[in-house]
Amino acid sequence: MRIVDVRERTISISRYRDPALGGGALTTSLVAVVTDARRDGAPLTGFGFASFGRFAQGGLIRERFAPRLIAAAERDLAGADGAIDPLRAWSVMMRGEKPGGHGERCVAVGALDMALWDLAAKAAEMPVYRFLSHAAGTQSLRNEAVEVYAGGGYVYPERDVQRLVEEIQMFSDLGYARVKIKIGDSDLARARARIEAVLEGVPASSLAVDAMNAYDASHALAAASALRPYGLWWFEDVCDPLDFDTLRAVKAAYGGAIAAGEALFSLAEARLVHRYGGLDPHCDILLFDPVHCYGIPEYLRIVAELERAGWPRRAFWPHGGHLFGLHVAAGLGLGGAEVNPFAFAPLGGLHDGARIVDGRVAPPDAPGIGFELQAAARAAFATLR
Amino acid sequence: MRIVDVRERTISISRYRDPALGGGALTTSLVAVVTDARRDGAPLTGFGFASFGRFAQGGLIRERFAPRLIAAAERDLAGADGAIDPLRAWSVMMRGEKPGGHGERCVAVGALDMALWDLAAKAAEMPVYRFLSHAAGTQSLRNEAVEVYAGGGYVYPERDVQRLVEEIQMFSDLGYARVKIKIGDSDLARARARIEAVLEGVPASSLAVDAMNAYDASHALAAASALRPYGLWWFEDVCDPLDFDTLRAVKAAYGGAIAAGEALFSLAEARLVHRYGGLDPHCDILLFDPVHCYGIPEYLRIVAELERAGWPRRAFWPHGGHLFGLHVAAGLGLGGAEVNPFAFAPLGGLHDGARIVDGRVAPPDAPGIGFELQAAARAAFATLR
Repeated sequence: MRIVDVRERTISISRYRDPALGGGALTTSLVAVVTDARRDGAPLTGFGFASFGRFAQGGLIRERFAPRLIAAAERDLAGADGAIDPLRAWSVMMRGEKPGGHGERCVAVGALDMALWDLAAKAAEMPVYRFLSHAAGTQSLRNEAVEVYAGGGYVYPERDVQRLVEEIQMFSDLGYARVKIKIGDSDLARARARIEAVLEGVPASSLAVDAMNAYDASHALAAASALRPYGLWWFEDVCDPLDFDTLRAVKAAYGGAIAAGEALFSLAEARLVHRYGGLDPHCDILLFDPVHCYGIPEYLRIVAELERAGWPRRAFWPHGGHLFGLHVAAGLGLGGAEVNPFAFAPLGGLHDGARIVDGRVAPPDAPGIGFELQAAARAAFATLR
Repeated sequence: MRIVDVRERTISISRYRDPALGGGALTTSLVAVVTDARRDGAPLTGFGFASFGRFAQGGLIRERFAPRLIAAAERDLAGADGAIDPLRAWSVMMRGEKPGGHGERCVAVGALDMALWDLAAKAAEMPVYRFLSHAAGTQSLRNEAVEVYAGGGYVYPERDVQRLVEEIQMFSDLGYARVKIKIGDSDLARARARIEAVLEGVPASSLAVDAMNAYDASHALAAASALRPYGLWWFEDVCDPLDFDTLRAVKAAYGGAIAAGEALFSLAEARLVHRYGGLDPHCDILLFDPVHCYGIPEYLRIVAELERAGWPRRAFWPHGGHLFGLHVAAGLGLGGAEVNPFAFAPLGGLHDGARIVDGRVAPPDAPGIGFELQAAARAAFATLR
């Protein structure tokens, strides 16, 4: 099996259910990896995208990484069964890449890597979570119904608290018991007002808050003191992702669960937050986005090394909020997965008709990731021609 | 003054004087920032490029950063004199960028930033080193003749040591007394053979060696023991750029001058190597490439903050090896500058006819960077139409 074409397209995504509200001028890349194999009368194709929260990577995909895949000999891509092995394809993509500089390219490689897992699982006629657990040797850890929470709660440009409460109610109507909201863009009085409004309907132990790496050292410490009494589920992205002195000070001052790692994009950086961040493996949460960290091969190394260093798998709650993240959490037996039910359409959320039961949901059992079962995503990928 | 067009092109560059020898499949981006102002009957235009050692950034330049410059209102770009202020233009480029992820985009922004300094200095009819020292408030530190060394000495595919010795002889013929060679791709026996061959003609105190971030922890420590007796000028990029535990151990074992930072691309990462790298500000060398670190505005913050933390300006020897690096070292009063006399044509090395006297050379006094005085570079930029 060879890769004969890689298609990509940049799309705009919004933090809000109503994209007319704006929301950060965010973009992501859709990709399709097309092979010379056939399935159901069409070329066997894997679909992926660049997750949410950074930017589209069309240039790096077209100019650097897709050409390496397309130029690769079949023997450099194929596993023992002749199908494309995502782990080997990853090595092809990373040929000649240098140490350091973990930004952008990690997102481009991660988007292509997602498509390669979709492709490989489709070739094996398995859902990704099952295929991944075989590839990673984690069958015994596999968890078909994953703990999930609803992510969202971005600050609204107008009628903020009222709309936030409505959004939380919609999460609840969908069956989500746990939620995560943003607080970092706002001052502490606003953060408190948002938190207290949500706590009217959600227990503190089910509410996580995300400061989006926006606080400097003194603001982070002030926020830690202000939030400590609430006893929240976790306090996320409290400062610059590489400011480990502040993270350590916040952890010491805050006491409760801290979540970190959404804006760390490599094993080298994961080691740093473990080594210098002052976190507690038995209490704190690691958010590394598998797509933004060069994809699954690097994410597997991160999980394996930090597990050896004392972090249980239940500490990993991958950032993302999409169907692929659900497969990764299920296949690797991680703590759980974020879901963005309303943000980042057409790729946020899960397959159509997914049902949350007791805070858990299973990935679809269709071959691959199952974007074909998510009408909005399917329509988006269908534009890659 | 407004920016009306940004042109870019990817070119291949080679580590060797003879590009037929190959050398890493490296690329860089040329950029031209074109304004609506006129000079000598043509649009006032600044030229820049993405330095050496990472990759071209055409996609990020075209898709993300150039559109922000072109869309910007004149009032957001202009300084008090109405000309484009590179510091303000930098803020326009970085609008909406998120913390963390310091790779690729930092190179794209740095390439455009170089062109913005060329442009602004041309508008002010000053060479960049003089314009920069005014903008940065470093007139009293400005140093018109900068200490330089010749960089190169990559491992040759055949007849390695013989060709290395010939290359060092050519450096010497050009007037370079100090040189830097690569050792990281080779085993320690080869590293020793290369070093000893060069030491036949160059004193150890004038020879720096670069391991190109290729060693793991145990190899780095073995190399430190093996190299320590030579008493070299410095030992550079000994391990993964984010592996500060290894860097600290190597520094302790090696004793002599360690150079670090070529593959760190932000103030956040510069803080980390200062905080955790175990380096000695009175002995060690900081190599941050101003172009790869988001350009001059971020580099100024790095120098200012590390100076406050105890690092003298003489500790900064910016990576690069081109004319812009010479201006930066001159304008900011840094320790010195790398020059790549043969590698990375058409952009390595200095203006035609530059003369090294007592190990020093002055940047050209033409307006801007002076690529117009470097025939190979001038011809390359002339293709940006």
